[in-house]
Amino acid sequence: MQNRGSINIGLIGLGVIGSGVVKILNEKADRITRQVGTHLVLKSAADLDESRKDTLSDSSVFTTDALSLIENPDIDIVIELIGGETPAKDYIKEAILCGKHVVTANKEVLAKHGPELLAMAGEHRVGLLYEASVGGGIPLIGPLKRNLQINNISAIHTIINGTTNYILTRMEKEGLEFAAALKEAQSLGYAEADPTNDIEGFDAAYKIAILATIAFHTDIRPDDVFHEGISRIASQDFRYAKELGYAIKLLAIAKKENSAVQARVHPVFIPDDILLAKVDGVFNAVQIEGDLSGKVLFYGRGAGAEPTANVIVADAIHLAQNINTGNSEKPELPFDERRIVKPMEDIETRYYIRMTIADQPGVLAQITKVLGEYSISISSAIQKETDRTSQSAEIVIMTHPAKEQAMQQALRQMEGLEVVREISNLIRVEG
Amino acid sequence: MQNRGSINIGLIGLGVIGSGVVKILNEKADRITRQVGTHLVLKSAADLDESRKDTLSDSSVFTTDALSLIENPDIDIVIELIGGETPAKDYIKEAILCGKHVVTANKEVLAKHGPELLAMAGEHRVGLLYEASVGGGIPLIGPLKRNLQINNISAIHTIINGTTNYILTRMEKEGLEFAAALKEAQSLGYAEADPTNDIEGFDAAYKIAILATIAFHTDIRPDDVFHEGISRIASQDFRYAKELGYAIKLLAIAKKENSAVQARVHPVFIPDDILLAKVDGVFNAVQIEGDLSGKVLFYGRGAGAEPTANVIVADAIHLAQNINTGNSEKPELPFDERRIVKPMEDIETRYYIRMTIADQPGVLAQITKVLGEYSISISSAIQKETDRTSQSAEIVIMTHPAKEQAMQQALRQMEGLEVVREISNLIRVEG
Repeated sequence: MQNRGSINIGLIGLGVIGSGVVKILNEKADRITRQVGTHLVLKSAADLDESRKDTLSDSSVFTTDALSLIENPDIDIVIELIGGETPAKDYIKEAILCGKHVVTANKEVLAKHGPELLAMAGEHRVGLLYEASVGGGIPLIGPLKRNLQINNISAIHTIINGTTNYILTRMEKEGLEFAAALKEAQSLGYAEADPTNDIEGFDAAYKIAILATIAFHTDIRPDDVFHEGISRIASQDFRYAKELGYAIKLLAIAKKENSAVQARVHPVFIPDDILLAKVDGVFNAVQIEGDLSGKVLFYGRGAGAEPTANVIVADAIHLAQNINTGNSEKPELPFDERRIVKPMEDIETRYYIRMTIADQPGVLAQITKVLGEYSISISSAIQKETDRTSQSAEIVIMTHPAKEQAMQQALRQMEGLEVVREISNLIRVEG
Repeated sequence: MQNRGSINIGLIGLGVIGSGVVKILNEKADRITRQVGTHLVLKSAADLDESRKDTLSDSSVFTTDALSLIENPDIDIVIELIGGETPAKDYIKEAILCGKHVVTANKEVLAKHGPELLAMAGEHRVGLLYEASVGGGIPLIGPLKRNLQINNISAIHTIINGTTNYILTRMEKEGLEFAAALKEAQSLGYAEADPTNDIEGFDAAYKIAILATIAFHTDIRPDDVFHEGISRIASQDFRYAKELGYAIKLLAIAKKENSAVQARVHPVFIPDDILLAKVDGVFNAVQIEGDLSGKVLFYGRGAGAEPTANVIVADAIHLAQNINTGNSEKPELPFDERRIVKPMEDIETRYYIRMTIADQPGVLAQITKVLGEYSISISSAIQKETDRTSQSAEIVIMTHPAKEQAMQQALRQMEGLEVVREISNLIRVEG
């Protein structure tokens, strides 16, 4: 024990999460001191927006100059909470070079540059912790690295974006259409004014890249992750899913297949009696399957100031305890099990297809013929609503497992059929 | 880094879990070496049953003398897996006194003597890790201590005994009676020949005592935990629960109320749409509510050789990494927030009562009168099956919140009523 007077934190970013960290450091100071054995002091806080000075109880620690904060020799731990790739990545690098321990919630930087930054932290014998970057307040990365590390992990199935899960839940429970549910999510602050990042699966792609990298000991970047959003889903998809015994969720999935991995984000049909199907609203869940552990699932709040700030401060406490006891950080093992990320075209799943066709005899035969040409066999085809005026009908087809490439080619060919008015949606079936 | 040639393990107990540990140490040797930076070697393995020597690939490390194993100066980490209070507790103590790090899965020793043993380990600067003692293969104690430590935890709701959850699931899904479901569980190896420990809630009481001690920083022992088993539950309780929108689970519950805590194990009605209601079969789940984290839930296999051995080996790896890097173990904080464990009589819940009454006018009035005398108000009373031969009827009463003491007194008085043939079951309602 080489207890010191205090351990000093420099915080970059005083937005929602940053203010949450400030609040916890203030309100839980006694408990934190007891855990660490030393005071954990907010020595400096940086933000470009000077009005955010007001979130601090001691505004004299405020600065607009993040670099001076990082280079301040009194700072032991830098907490980076500005988000986005630039300049956050440079700040984290500079902090490591200055010998500071780093805590970050930055999924984009971790997903794009995690392996290099972790290796760099290892070389400089500092810790780089990022529990808050995936799953907000849910402990995930710690258990994955610490308790499940010797598992041969075969699959990760996650509901990892609260915005889209909220929208899908509202569509399912209230019969809302996508646009109305999105508007509601925006008015509640669950979705941003420009919701692209969440809706189109970019956010989930970052997060699954981080988890898959750790779980498979393989360097997986966001560009490797196929992603498709939820904006094409309509209220009747939920009705049909329910009739067929499924729920619709936006899943981020990673699987290991011998020397390859799958990494993809898209809406899926999942059986409505499994636990993931019951994860509603803004909640997140991460299910991990390992050869020893079997299925393990972690569930909780994937966003929000308090849950996220909680795990950030917990990471800072862990680093402070190590500073205090003279313990070194365990360097991250290199993610050097080279595995190919399987192209989406080669992935095989079952499919749900909803389409509008001419309401006349022989149409289904024409459709099944096309599917047959691509070796796609049908497990059920049900005619749903009929519109007498336009002489059209909606049909729902469930297929047996087929290759994505074959399915996409079949879809294009079916779109060319005169009797097919519209292919309204294609949703993959998982589990 | 002060890398050594190898780090040596002494394993006491070569039963199901112990053999699982041996298997993992063999089969995952390369991965473990990579994690630790040094070989992790099974230097000695003790069991009183000499035939278990055969589970070892190198039978020369076998001994029947656990104490000589503990005192062997070559051993760095002792893994205790014999279970039960004696002599396991003495072995753990002796190992700590000999300066060995200890990993154990022993819920009974931890629940009864955890605080002393952890303090002792702290004094001797060794680690005492026990992730496997609660929730088998689910990472729980690590996340609770590391990621959720600064939360003010208000409640823990757990399905923490796989045997009883399997029995209840079979009763619910297949309409089995308790005896038949128990027999099935026994034939599958999910229940022991003498199932008392599981069925009557002793096992769950140990586990919730361990979790509550950590979560509330308060020394809670198994004797403080009220426990009631599942043997009184009948198939019609499941039918009625379903009609009313509930599932029946054996929960282990701990709650904080100002300066007091609740700690209890008993069957409960829980709303059938919450996540805990969907935890079926031998699976376990632990839900923790904290002021910062909100609700967090951990789910997975609570028993079984592989999942449990997995977290045991992970604990050993953690200790070995610290030995290797010269890091000291973080001493456990004392569980010194003194809180009174609230007696069961003072706890307030809602109740489900199933009883058989004489099928004649005015009976319900007599029953509600007795309940009213104890200030227990009824939220619904439904007459179920009627037996014309015996002129009796089964009724189900749901109450508003009432004190346990009042309810028990009312039950005794109702049993004295001539029109009450039998009070068949009383189940508390949670959530």
